[in-house]
Amino acid sequence: MRALTVVPGSAGSLAVTDVPDPEAGDTRLLVDAIALGVCGTDREITAGEYGWPPEGRERLVLGHESLGRVGTAPPGSGFSPGDLVVGIVRHPDPVPCGACARGEWDMCRNGRYTEHGIKEVDGFGSERWAIEPGHAVRLDPGLSGVGVLMEPTTVVAKAWEHIERISERAWFDPRTVLVTGAGPIGLLAALLGRQRGLDVHVLDRVTSGVKPQVVEALGATYHSGPVDEVTRALLPEIVIEATGATQVAMEVIATNAPAGIVCLTGVSPAGRRLVIDAGAFNRNLVLENDVVFGSVNANRRHYEQAAEALARADTAWLERLITRRLPLERAHEAFEPGDHDDIKVVIDLGGRIG
Amino acid sequence: MRALTVVPGSAGSLAVTDVPDPEAGDTRLLVDAIALGVCGTDREITAGEYGWPPEGRERLVLGHESLGRVGTAPPGSGFSPGDLVVGIVRHPDPVPCGACARGEWDMCRNGRYTEHGIKEVDGFGSERWAIEPGHAVRLDPGLSGVGVLMEPTTVVAKAWEHIERISERAWFDPRTVLVTGAGPIGLLAALLGRQRGLDVHVLDRVTSGVKPQVVEALGATYHSGPVDEVTRALLPEIVIEATGATQVAMEVIATNAPAGIVCLTGVSPAGRRLVIDAGAFNRNLVLENDVVFGSVNANRRHYEQAAEALARADTAWLERLITRRLPLERAHEAFEPGDHDDIKVVIDLGGRIG
Repeated sequence: MRALTVVPGSAGSLAVTDVPDPEAGDTRLLVDAIALGVCGTDREITAGEYGWPPEGRERLVLGHESLGRVGTAPPGSGFSPGDLVVGIVRHPDPVPCGACARGEWDMCRNGRYTEHGIKEVDGFGSERWAIEPGHAVRLDPGLSGVGVLMEPTTVVAKAWEHIERISERAWFDPRTVLVTGAGPIGLLAALLGRQRGLDVHVLDRVTSGVKPQVVEALGATYHSGPVDEVTRALLPEIVIEATGATQVAMEVIATNAPAGIVCLTGVSPAGRRLVIDAGAFNRNLVLENDVVFGSVNANRRHYEQAAEALARADTAWLERLITRRLPLERAHEAFEPGDHDDIKVVIDLGGRIG
Repeated sequence: MRALTVVPGSAGSLAVTDVPDPEAGDTRLLVDAIALGVCGTDREITAGEYGWPPEGRERLVLGHESLGRVGTAPPGSGFSPGDLVVGIVRHPDPVPCGACARGEWDMCRNGRYTEHGIKEVDGFGSERWAIEPGHAVRLDPGLSGVGVLMEPTTVVAKAWEHIERISERAWFDPRTVLVTGAGPIGLLAALLGRQRGLDVHVLDRVTSGVKPQVVEALGATYHSGPVDEVTRALLPEIVIEATGATQVAMEVIATNAPAGIVCLTGVSPAGRRLVIDAGAFNRNLVLENDVVFGSVNANRRHYEQAAEALARADTAWLERLITRRLPLERAHEAFEPGDHDDIKVVIDLGGRIG
């Protein structure tokens, strides 16, 4: 079968190659892939800046934003042929740390986890893949066109869960949420904020096109002004930072509401120098009891929360987040710079949608 | 009676002046002051950089780290003459915000709180003071020599409470705590860490004198090496930053344990520029699920936690944190630069200790 593969550490190695068909063995589900989402981590891997191949191999099957339909399921697996599923990205080490042992592999302490399509385990960028039932999550049948948005939704489900758990340190009655960055993570974070009944604002640099439209369609408010001015005017109790720009994080910390919570979800390459007002950073955090935290990955609980959030959402709205669909043979186009209107680029892998 | 007063906003205005004796009225306790602790906020106020006088007045009685003995107590107040007490520093506005209305005035949202000796209400730097029973906290009678350490202990009691509440977001089994800065806040934070049975490390610049000694006496480990090297070697799950230096905060964030929690307690003046590796800041926070938060002030719950922590502590050890005691007429010396061995400077206010 065909798969999208890459040599981690080697820029320009991305290719559609032939790989052996997966074998189910006694316990695994065999899944016909429908689609694969492409994100910044995939772009880092294809640029040779991140990623690890499976042991003893040179090439890694790329892709961790999966969607497929079960072809064959072993008896007692809890799944049936036709079920719409995604695969959980991270697996704990066979000798798990304390967090992994409790199913919280998103909080892994020793770094010995593996990740489909990223770290030592093949990804979901192939026409078929096999997975243990314990690492598959079923989606509502109505999500066959947009369920490829599941993995980024798990990331924001975790971010929201941690925001809510951290907020239990003291009285908290948030009204206003600011999301910085109108990419897939930012827009899905905004969706989950609206599902919580909050007053959601999304800030991005672009001033026209699909991003302002999908924000307004969500019942949220779109902004494109300077970060500090927008934040000072809104005084958000919750900020979800999804641009990966530290300058943005520093500005929202300095201008958000007292006792505010800032969740960072974006990463930027190390080595970028920035001059900050160090005294103001400390003063604002301390004198206002602010919290800043980072959030990455997701565990099964967040997959279940995300599946529920997507099932509750307007499918037509989710569809608008997928701004390009490419056949596998044109997958390389997903890794070339898109325009400002691009939100999520998806590679079609041939599986039956309807 | 005599009091230590200052004109907020006016450097060099600190003086021992005559002020009217307090009146108990029907409901307040009359307290004979024993001692007053001096901290960085007091030094900011005497330097003209912070502080607000009571409405319609020019001078403010300075001091928020109190200790006194009840002289007269109204019937039904719950207090008796001779009780050792401290006054709670912050009061909510008569029209409280949501946090203040729930007794969490340390998390005040609208900034309309008042603070004894800092913001719009006279402090405890006078020979006698009056206080509503609801704003007084009783201390163990054995603490008459060291109970002046109560207010900084409430600050670290709150810091520890928030560390513990935030840590409930996921599995957390901390072993190692790093405290940066061996001033009163750092050393009291280390005490509360030891009381929790944790492996506590304290880092400061000085290499000899009383600070390393009191750290070792606590059963903790003293370090004076570079912040990043010490942190990388220890991999602390919890860091309590008590130097106020953002550079230190940035280095511990970059080198602490995955899923680590960094609590900032120190403030530094705004306007200090610092060049940081912005990408590394984001990457470390996000990819390691780190939390950084600021903590200031304390509410009644933290006063009760602090009273219990002090009652459990070794009084002789606490005594060593008070490195200078000055009579009121020499109070100005507490605001002149001390040497590196100074931990807490206390002004004696004449009340009976034993």
